[in-house]
Amino acid sequence: MNQPFSPARRDIPAAVHTSLSERFRERYTTNSSILSQHGADESHYEPMPPDAVVFPLSTEEVAFIVKLCAEHRAPVIAFGVGSSVEGHVLAVQGGICIDMSRMDRILKVQPEDMTATVQAGVTRMALNDELAHSGFFFSVDPGANATIGGMVATAASGTNTVRYGTMRDNLLNLTVVTAEGEIVRTASRARKSSAGYHLTNLYCGSEGTLGIITEVTVKLHPRPEEILAAVATFGDIKGAVDAVIQAVQLGLPLARAEMLDALTIHAINRHSKTSLTEAPTLFLEFCGAAGEATAQAAQMQQIVHDCGGGEFAMSTREEERATLWNPRHNAYFAVLQQKPGSRSVTTDACVPVSVLSDCVEETRLDLEASELPVAIFGHVGDGNFHCMILIDPANADERERAEALSQRLTRRAIRFGGTCTGEHGVGLHKTAYLVEEHGEGAVDIMRRIKKALDPHDILNPGKVLPDH
Amino acid sequence: MNQPFSPARRDIPAAVHTSLSERFRERYTTNSSILSQHGADESHYEPMPPDAVVFPLSTEEVAFIVKLCAEHRAPVIAFGVGSSVEGHVLAVQGGICIDMSRMDRILKVQPEDMTATVQAGVTRMALNDELAHSGFFFSVDPGANATIGGMVATAASGTNTVRYGTMRDNLLNLTVVTAEGEIVRTASRARKSSAGYHLTNLYCGSEGTLGIITEVTVKLHPRPEEILAAVATFGDIKGAVDAVIQAVQLGLPLARAEMLDALTIHAINRHSKTSLTEAPTLFLEFCGAAGEATAQAAQMQQIVHDCGGGEFAMSTREEERATLWNPRHNAYFAVLQQKPGSRSVTTDACVPVSVLSDCVEETRLDLEASELPVAIFGHVGDGNFHCMILIDPANADERERAEALSQRLTRRAIRFGGTCTGEHGVGLHKTAYLVEEHGEGAVDIMRRIKKALDPHDILNPGKVLPDH
Repeated sequence: MNQPFSPARRDIPAAVHTSLSERFRERYTTNSSILSQHGADESHYEPMPPDAVVFPLSTEEVAFIVKLCAEHRAPVIAFGVGSSVEGHVLAVQGGICIDMSRMDRILKVQPEDMTATVQAGVTRMALNDELAHSGFFFSVDPGANATIGGMVATAASGTNTVRYGTMRDNLLNLTVVTAEGEIVRTASRARKSSAGYHLTNLYCGSEGTLGIITEVTVKLHPRPEEILAAVATFGDIKGAVDAVIQAVQLGLPLARAEMLDALTIHAINRHSKTSLTEAPTLFLEFCGAAGEATAQAAQMQQIVHDCGGGEFAMSTREEERATLWNPRHNAYFAVLQQKPGSRSVTTDACVPVSVLSDCVEETRLDLEASELPVAIFGHVGDGNFHCMILIDPANADERERAEALSQRLTRRAIRFGGTCTGEHGVGLHKTAYLVEEHGEGAVDIMRRIKKALDPHDILNPGKVLPDH
Repeated sequence: MNQPFSPARRDIPAAVHTSLSERFRERYTTNSSILSQHGADESHYEPMPPDAVVFPLSTEEVAFIVKLCAEHRAPVIAFGVGSSVEGHVLAVQGGICIDMSRMDRILKVQPEDMTATVQAGVTRMALNDELAHSGFFFSVDPGANATIGGMVATAASGTNTVRYGTMRDNLLNLTVVTAEGEIVRTASRARKSSAGYHLTNLYCGSEGTLGIITEVTVKLHPRPEEILAAVATFGDIKGAVDAVIQAVQLGLPLARAEMLDALTIHAINRHSKTSLTEAPTLFLEFCGAAGEATAQAAQMQQIVHDCGGGEFAMSTREEERATLWNPRHNAYFAVLQQKPGSRSVTTDACVPVSVLSDCVEETRLDLEASELPVAIFGHVGDGNFHCMILIDPANADERERAEALSQRLTRRAIRFGGTCTGEHGVGLHKTAYLVEEHGEGAVDIMRRIKKALDPHDILNPGKVLPDH
């Protein structure tokens, strides 16, 4: 893929390396393979390595690093597990990468307040393992086992956002290191507050460009008594999408509602040796007090019939539920294996649910015409869907065609009243669309905020905001 | 009450008056009684009138006013219905008041997306009247019939926040006029987005200090099939509070959970000629699909018993529900009438639910010692409670004692890990606590944002942020 930016690496003075090396010793490295690994994410870009990687253990250590970099105008890039998909962590101007993975302590679980406070490097699965016997869980579940800090930085969401909200809805407060290396906490532990500007949700989604998130207090949810998983197939994508939209409009509290197209199911059958019907499919989950999930499923079965879908395969038993849903969880890798050696250009359109069917249908026709292998699946209850366009990264023609498809879809989403990114973030890849989506005035406000909070542009430079 | 600021009115050049008068004619006024009315809210402060009031009809007219004021460095204060309680709308430096009440058009209701777009001057009740037959409703319900724009500006919430969230959770996008008089839209109509900084929730809660909100797209919720109202009395406040906390922790989806103390019930009995037991009381509401509310209520009755509460008076019928809940809705005025001619110093502490009982109990003892009439009630599911401290506004001693109580409570809330304001906002009255709650570093970040977005400090100057 053509890199949509002109990298101009900044000079990192030797004093920065010396100070970091003295303070962090073996937790500071310029080993080239580690640098390469930290210069790439799951996007299709060529890696752009940082000049050094540091592994802090505490907020104070992060503050030390940023203060030093601020003094020398060196870029600072926070790194979680590298699972972002839009080039968020590429060191386009070089600089110091702060790998947060060793800040992996769960600082406090407070079940009585239904909150947990974690260091930013804790992964979502590690947190849920810790909560396994607490009666509570942390709800946000992007595809990867991302760090909580990374999920805050990109305002991530996932399969059960339709019921429990996005990362933004599940935050109480953050500890953030500012561009000057000061430590601030964005809010108290109260569940709501009107005390001043809402810094929590300003840093959430700022992708490391306004501050480095070091600690996070998240909301937890009580584990429901009853969970029911259901799978149904449809004659066409429109039927599957419409069924979910009708359910949402009726107030049926879906816990999860994922649509996978026939090609995705085909890929899953080959990958997991299953024999699912290769047709557009809904993976559903219902939850509630005893009996409620079953009642909801019965109501949904009727809606599914009305929209041309078939009988539910369903279960409330944990093992059977896992069997029913595993295909959905494996979709990303199953699709990638359809074309060995391929990379995916993954789109992230999100539109109002009333136009989702039309947007998906227009997209499907465009994708079919391209003759590239493309899988479509998505969190249709939120109006969010992904296309995985498989390309040979060495094939310039495929790269260009995929990028053109992605661009048309992004513009289509904006034209339909939606957004260029529902949950993946801007990174490098979507900067070009920010003005189209928000207008020059709103982007100017964002630029002023960036300038006010990071006057020397050291925090993840080149990301989120387009060049003037 | 001593005014906690030193008013220094700015000179408003004649050119501003001339331009406004020419453009707005009878929708521009300097009539002194209208000025006085626009210089006060429901707080205990002496009115501080603006220099003129203008009644725009459109976003473009608001932009014209702000552009003119920006040119002449004149303060601009947006005004809804004046129901704020912390001095938000007082023209402490003079200036032009923009009365939004004639921007009262409901621009679009889109039931298929469960959204409505309104001008900022639409009140919450007017919106719900419009939605009466749509099958949907707008959930946020502060005590007053506030404007939607005002509710966005203060990040309001209300009795059903425990189920449906605060104003921040119910916004899709805003149209805002910037300090330069430019018109920006903060987001698309997609239900979620990771496309750049979250301007929607930055303006929400900014109390007119970062921009003037002119249009709002809110989320709607499907009307539940079954609604059940219930009322139970307790031997003490702690039992009532603990019952709600236990229910929340068990995941029981309370739609509303309001606690009123014995004095509030006594006031209601006198005001509404009712004969309720004068004891700490919970007003509850449950909702869901057919049968669900009844099942939830049965579960809650058990919890109430465990916490020392009595039998529910309850009903699912609309008229009986209204009869059960009316006392709660009339509480504010019933309490005010306990002491004719009084004003209320109303507090707004919000703490983590695990310490709510302790915080309320400590507060109750402090209040009792004061010998001022005080009612306590609150949205206990969120950890938020209000004290109405009744004072004779002409009595300096009462004013001072009430302010001292309020100050101790605010500091207690912060000490308990909570916030100085759960839903009323900062206005003038809470500016002194912002640093105590957030720390100097976080407040400095807020100051930089203010400076970046309103460099000449014309937007509602003196509010939210403390003087240096």
